[in-house]
Amino acid sequence: MRILGIDPGLQTTGFGVVEADGPHLAYVASGTIRTKDAARGDLPGRLKIIFEGVREVQARYAPSCAAVEIVFVNVNPQSTLLLGQARGAALAALVSGDLPVSEYTALQMKKAIVGNGHASKEQVQHMVMRLLGLPAPPGPDAADALGIAIAHAHAGTSLAAMAHAGGTLERRQHALYRKGRAY
Amino acid sequence: MRILGIDPGLQTTGFGVVEADGPHLAYVASGTIRTKDAARGDLPGRLKIIFEGVREVQARYAPSCAAVEIVFVNVNPQSTLLLGQARGAALAALVSGDLPVSEYTALQMKKAIVGNGHASKEQVQHMVMRLLGLPAPPGPDAADALGIAIAHAHAGTSLAAMAHAGGTLERRQHALYRKGRAY
Repeated sequence: MRILGIDPGLQTTGFGVVEADGPHLAYVASGTIRTKDAARGDLPGRLKIIFEGVREVQARYAPSCAAVEIVFVNVNPQSTLLLGQARGAALAALVSGDLPVSEYTALQMKKAIVGNGHASKEQVQHMVMRLLGLPAPPGPDAADALGIAIAHAHAGTSLAAMAHAGGTLERRQHALYRKGRAY
Repeated sequence: MRILGIDPGLQTTGFGVVEADGPHLAYVASGTIRTKDAARGDLPGRLKIIFEGVREVQARYAPSCAAVEIVFVNVNPQSTLLLGQARGAALAALVSGDLPVSEYTALQMKKAIVGNGHASKEQVQHMVMRLLGLPAPPGPDAADALGIAIAHAHAGTSLAAMAHAGGTLERRQHALYRKGRAY
């Protein structure tokens, strides 16, 4: 299973590709799609960069599924609207490429990676580096995206284990990693 | 100039296609893209319907440009986030089809169509029917989308007139119809 993780944002969208073979994880690629250079205020142009960037990552690394961070409302409603549009463009790119998409909150991702839903950005970067055996910690946006991909890999393993075990305790424990559609 | 107007929404996205030849307007098509039947909470699936619906309208009616309503923040931040994602998917469809996109607020559209920025939905439906010589008023979402397309047609005419006139009064008057990028 090759998983494309996405941490959507209007200025910077992080991506991370991870190969998962049962409990074994391997790093494939990661990086960011940046729209800062686009003309200020040109929202359609910035969404185009995000859409085409996500499509390009898919074409280059051929993931079998995608996992996207669930974004939250901001204190500033206008920022919430902009973030929503950026996430909509990223999701449109994924689903138009017929990739199955799962969604996880940052809390679910941090719980899966660090074991603490309130872990700092630095802790996520450090644990992603260790889990994937990288020589240095990835940047914060790429680390979040890789973290989302790893959380999805764990969810797959957990759900597979659950199918065999079937205990309610197990079920409750792993429910955290299931598609968190909190709409 | 064939203009595709879009009134984005998560449940219902209205579209309207208008042919503008100078001051002359002709109706081409209108309708809605609905995601209500999609599995409740399946946001990626609903964004896929919006994305593919907008692409299909483009393929069928071959517009030369698009005009999209600028949406506003809702009292409910979660709804704002959902609306943003729907609009992001619609814009991604337009820009991925390399269509130039202009944006107008509902206030700008109503001013252009009814002459009153605070006109009711019914007034917009009625005036769109009259301006395009339709036998009956279109539904509210299609009427808004047609209204956005007509507002863009007016903006084009006004800007062309402005280029010849060049008066500051004229300029100020028509500034209302220019790309309203209120980000």
